[in-house]
Amino acid sequence: MTEFDFIRQYLKTRQGAEVVLGIGDDAAVIRPRCGFDLCFSSDMLVGGRHFFIDESPEDLAWKVLAVNVSDMAAMGAEPKWVLLSVALPYLDKHWLERFCCRFFELSEKFGVVLIGGDTTKGEWVFNITIAGELPEGKALKRSAAMVGDDIWVSGQLGSAAAGLRVKQNLCVLPENLSAVCIDKLLRPEPRVALGRLILPFANAAQDVSDGLAQDLGHILTASGVGAEIFVEALPSVSGLREELGYENWLSCVLSGGDDYELVFTAPHTCRRRVEEAAEHSGVAVTRIGTINDTGRLNIKEKDGSELKLTSLGFDHFG
Amino acid sequence: MTEFDFIRQYLKTRQGAEVVLGIGDDAAVIRPRCGFDLCFSSDMLVGGRHFFIDESPEDLAWKVLAVNVSDMAAMGAEPKWVLLSVALPYLDKHWLERFCCRFFELSEKFGVVLIGGDTTKGEWVFNITIAGELPEGKALKRSAAMVGDDIWVSGQLGSAAAGLRVKQNLCVLPENLSAVCIDKLLRPEPRVALGRLILPFANAAQDVSDGLAQDLGHILTASGVGAEIFVEALPSVSGLREELGYENWLSCVLSGGDDYELVFTAPHTCRRRVEEAAEHSGVAVTRIGTINDTGRLNIKEKDGSELKLTSLGFDHFG
Repeated sequence: MTEFDFIRQYLKTRQGAEVVLGIGDDAAVIRPRCGFDLCFSSDMLVGGRHFFIDESPEDLAWKVLAVNVSDMAAMGAEPKWVLLSVALPYLDKHWLERFCCRFFELSEKFGVVLIGGDTTKGEWVFNITIAGELPEGKALKRSAAMVGDDIWVSGQLGSAAAGLRVKQNLCVLPENLSAVCIDKLLRPEPRVALGRLILPFANAAQDVSDGLAQDLGHILTASGVGAEIFVEALPSVSGLREELGYENWLSCVLSGGDDYELVFTAPHTCRRRVEEAAEHSGVAVTRIGTINDTGRLNIKEKDGSELKLTSLGFDHFG
Repeated sequence: MTEFDFIRQYLKTRQGAEVVLGIGDDAAVIRPRCGFDLCFSSDMLVGGRHFFIDESPEDLAWKVLAVNVSDMAAMGAEPKWVLLSVALPYLDKHWLERFCCRFFELSEKFGVVLIGGDTTKGEWVFNITIAGELPEGKALKRSAAMVGDDIWVSGQLGSAAAGLRVKQNLCVLPENLSAVCIDKLLRPEPRVALGRLILPFANAAQDVSDGLAQDLGHILTASGVGAEIFVEALPSVSGLREELGYENWLSCVLSGGDDYELVFTAPHTCRRRVEEAAEHSGVAVTRIGTINDTGRLNIKEKDGSELKLTSLGFDHFG
């Protein structure tokens, strides 16, 4: 099978209203709507580093698309167009069919159209570029957190990190909990609907891909502010804390990546609106702390002591 | 050096008028102009396959950007924004500085702004997604060739293929000619200015990346037409035919990739306008044949016989 057959057979675009010219030319052509900004983001996923190369094609398709859709969610944008480049060591028709089948199923679910990309021989690399649309000037920037803002997270934290530990045989969890965590690792749910609903009143937002502490840290740095968050407020799936033990649980919820939840800030006058947005999008949200002017992240434990993150774990201070 | 340091140090975007938010958030934000379409294209280049991994960082930077800018030229678009993903086996500060320095020099030359991308550990993979702008509905499609159109190519064909043969020690050329050919292979010049100037009157266009016969073939297939082109009209650098011998020269000019010249069609009433566009863009153009309704590509040799391309080379028919 040649590169061109591959493109013809599997990557045929379904032309949408704004796709003037789909796959098959030197470039695709879209017609952006006036009054809207466009967001762009690109992610490269390398086999053995970002995913297991024996992952099922369905799970791989989900992951490469979902992590990019999540970037759009974090901007409050509507994901619309995607370009997929793939390097594979060999072209396995059956594998490709399964990959593409899930990829298109998900594209439809998220409302994105594949408009281009590339295929080549190589060692398991996927690159996705995604473009989304949002009302002019409305993007949820990392740099827009305000002192006094509430800090919210969607869904639950730490599940994907716990799932990774299970897959790496670093821990054992009860079957149900293990399934939930591995599912979160392999098939994260980008929070697009929530992102779009909080767009009118939220200030800063970011998706949690590298761990809450680090990702919230990006917001604090970009906004030139600090924050206080409460360990007891951090949402995680039922039973996870007990099963992992406090230290490992802390590590998962604060430093574990791949959850693809949203962390965002909004004025405290908007609590009702945040809860309404959560309700309408069907995603739980939890208020975990407050933006302040200290310039640093203060993580408070139950007894009021401060938790300090180190590269090796945590220090508990009195 | 971490991924974030890399981004901060080397990939800082220079914000342009239409870049609302550059590198450093979950996504970049641009504001497209009303009345313009956007073109998108993505290319993945793998070390050892699309480039030699001992290539100089300067030449690599040129190649990865230029081949993508060339896709914009082939649509008649103005290249504007680019996202660069890089997988490298190790982060070598000196290598990166040299790569980025040339990359930004070229971005400036082509008028594109880096708005995003990704960096990761991996085995020499570059992925570029480029976006360009053109007046609504004006894209130069492969599918728009009309029976009776002249077929034109820009610059010279076969130089890059000859340069590759020299680098692979498959042939020896005189020093000057060798330098010209290797330069064309490593530092192709995308024909952006020409593409934009022929936009108002040209019909179909494509860049020559896989060889003239194959790339013109794409236009014929997409447009449902045929063509007759003349071997004696095919432009190549002075002395190349004599040095390579007729058969090898044919192979380079008809099947050699990587020239990144434009092949385009335009009504025969537009010959003067094509020549003016060539003059204004400083790029020679050559008329090499005509679009017809035969549905196939007829390559005519000097004596009027037809040249038939085979997977192994050429057959000469009486």
